[in-house]
Amino acid sequence: MKQIQGGVTAAKGFEAAGVEAAIKYQNRKDMALIVSKAPCTVAGTFTSNVVKAAPVLWDKQIVEHSAFAQAVVVNSGIANACTGRQGLDCCEAEAKCAGELLDVPTDAVLVASTGVIGMQIPVDKITAGIKKLVTAKADTLEAGSDAAHAIMTTDTISKEIAIETEIGGKTVTLGGMCKGSGMIHPNMCTMLGFVTTDVNISKEMLQKCVSADVVDSFNMISVDGDTSTNDTLLVLANGMAGNEEITAEGEDYDNFCKALHEITTFLAKKMAGDGEGATALFETKVIHAASKEDARTLAKSVICSSLTKAAIFGHDANWGRILCALGYSGAKFDPENVDLYFESKSGKIHIFGNGVACDYSEEEATKILSDPEVTALVDMHMGDAEATAWGCDLSYDYVKINADYRS
Amino acid sequence: MKQIQGGVTAAKGFEAAGVEAAIKYQNRKDMALIVSKAPCTVAGTFTSNVVKAAPVLWDKQIVEHSAFAQAVVVNSGIANACTGRQGLDCCEAEAKCAGELLDVPTDAVLVASTGVIGMQIPVDKITAGIKKLVTAKADTLEAGSDAAHAIMTTDTISKEIAIETEIGGKTVTLGGMCKGSGMIHPNMCTMLGFVTTDVNISKEMLQKCVSADVVDSFNMISVDGDTSTNDTLLVLANGMAGNEEITAEGEDYDNFCKALHEITTFLAKKMAGDGEGATALFETKVIHAASKEDARTLAKSVICSSLTKAAIFGHDANWGRILCALGYSGAKFDPENVDLYFESKSGKIHIFGNGVACDYSEEEATKILSDPEVTALVDMHMGDAEATAWGCDLSYDYVKINADYRS
Repeated sequence: MKQIQGGVTAAKGFEAAGVEAAIKYQNRKDMALIVSKAPCTVAGTFTSNVVKAAPVLWDKQIVEHSAFAQAVVVNSGIANACTGRQGLDCCEAEAKCAGELLDVPTDAVLVASTGVIGMQIPVDKITAGIKKLVTAKADTLEAGSDAAHAIMTTDTISKEIAIETEIGGKTVTLGGMCKGSGMIHPNMCTMLGFVTTDVNISKEMLQKCVSADVVDSFNMISVDGDTSTNDTLLVLANGMAGNEEITAEGEDYDNFCKALHEITTFLAKKMAGDGEGATALFETKVIHAASKEDARTLAKSVICSSLTKAAIFGHDANWGRILCALGYSGAKFDPENVDLYFESKSGKIHIFGNGVACDYSEEEATKILSDPEVTALVDMHMGDAEATAWGCDLSYDYVKINADYRS
Repeated sequence: MKQIQGGVTAAKGFEAAGVEAAIKYQNRKDMALIVSKAPCTVAGTFTSNVVKAAPVLWDKQIVEHSAFAQAVVVNSGIANACTGRQGLDCCEAEAKCAGELLDVPTDAVLVASTGVIGMQIPVDKITAGIKKLVTAKADTLEAGSDAAHAIMTTDTISKEIAIETEIGGKTVTLGGMCKGSGMIHPNMCTMLGFVTTDVNISKEMLQKCVSADVVDSFNMISVDGDTSTNDTLLVLANGMAGNEEITAEGEDYDNFCKALHEITTFLAKKMAGDGEGATALFETKVIHAASKEDARTLAKSVICSSLTKAAIFGHDANWGRILCALGYSGAKFDPENVDLYFESKSGKIHIFGNGVACDYSEEEATKILSDPEVTALVDMHMGDAEATAWGCDLSYDYVKINADYRS
């Protein structure tokens, strides 16, 4: 398994595009297309929010009931959430328009939106955008990169990755892209994430792999604790790698799961590190927990703590807030048995043990916490389970970005 | 029932003091004392955090096992949390010193601390402070106010209230004080809250009343989602009002509960409105919910949403974030049936209904959201239950205060 250049166009048979459609803002790419030359097996996970955006409702239908999918149309700027009947009609119009131009059935066209909640999407702009997308589509790395740029909102960097692995004697490629970077606290999956692959896999096994994966990738990140109305992860597999179809667990399935996890973890970390206003990626790794569930709960509680996030922004080794966040997570443990370390490329330091502060150097701790990637390592001394969660610091810019996001 | 001047010294037989003891900072009052002339029935609720500060462990013993309590010693500056055996020894030394000077048993002296986690309290400073407190104690309103000032940390205003009511033909007085204002997301009770009363009530009925009360008062506020290691609410009743002892439910019990709720709600709202960096009190009232539990969950989800809090700071009617927060709360509902209003002293405006945005004036909405107390009113149209939660906006100053709190 190795990382290669590119994103959603890296796998065989996938084209993409990103264009300016002025959905809400001028002079920036705000519509993206992914299309496969062959019909795709599709799997997806969606927000657990009761308030689901119209595209989420549309895509759920397709993922659960359509025989295959072949294209995805995405817009940024307007989320098409809390938009009632008109919002659903917009999804259908999008899918119909793209389907006609691409010669695929309407119910094989997935749609996704991200941006302001509550506004209606201007359908004429969407259909004009789709025409531009279909004209612009290409299987080049640049086209994939254009798509990754077009789905950005408050993201400061585009997020894409591609991986090559061998499955059943064939070279299989996976490519992915995603966007953050506010209202990020995925529950079942992330804001918007798209993975394309040429692997040959059954729908059932693809969904199984995706559902198991998000629990330890996208569901382990948080920027602000707000689970969006639009969270969507879609994985399209067109089978063009030519491997024997994966229809059961086994070596091939495991290899594919590993490759997918590499993609999703990479994208999830990118999303956390590029959280709104973030200056640092803040990782919390919990080891020797009593259960996997406890490990996840503890790790996520720390990266979600506003006070801890603000301390990371200030490069302040205010470790009491981490103990506090572990304590209110809901997992049971004895604080006297916990060891806490801070770690970064500048070094590793033992902060807390035997129920009290260790005799550490504040200067050294501050140096470690000033790096752009900082890890809190928590040893529970209870069992064999471990989990890692990723978040970011809480900065002035998070407030700035969100105090007047709509204007 | 009427509000009167004063705080913890308003009820008969209670004295208080607040002095400078230089526990961590110079030139500010940082130790407080409450003492009753007669032994008190005591009730309390404490943090649900697994990591409990030493004073919490000390007080839980007394509330659960001592026949009575008579004094409370509080310090700010250092939380005495994550301090191991030495922290517990400090509590005992405090109680012993105060007990000797006040001539009450050691196990009738409650202690409470607030401030930085992980540092040890210098015992010599604490005992010197207790001597000053015992010399300074008085039953004046000023002494109560001194105590309320001494327990402040990042609070910008001291928080106290007193109420007079009639129970069983006697005038009964209740007085209270509390402090916030970060790491505030009480679970069982608040950061530090103290209520004194001269009511005559059994221990069992007092605890029953307090436990029921916090669910809709202190447990309905949040500043930053972080449930502290030190959360403590103590209620001391010395019986000096001379009413017939309340030993069962009935009119007297109900009257007392109402008066207590007036005190706790007042203090809880003050705490939320004075949250770290806050410029506004943000109230969310959920009506016609399917159950009381749902109503509480929905209301609290909204006031805890970082994105909503940032929008309130920006006076931005970004109501989609409120719908989003209702949606991920865990309560089940149909977004099409929800009505959302914004309300303040400047007016009331219908924002969302029938699944889509109402045709409201952004200018009017901004005017309402610019007031120092803002309410989001959510009508679920499902049942008869309602609940109110209180939080505050998320400002640059929250980040500033918490990025380097320890220095």
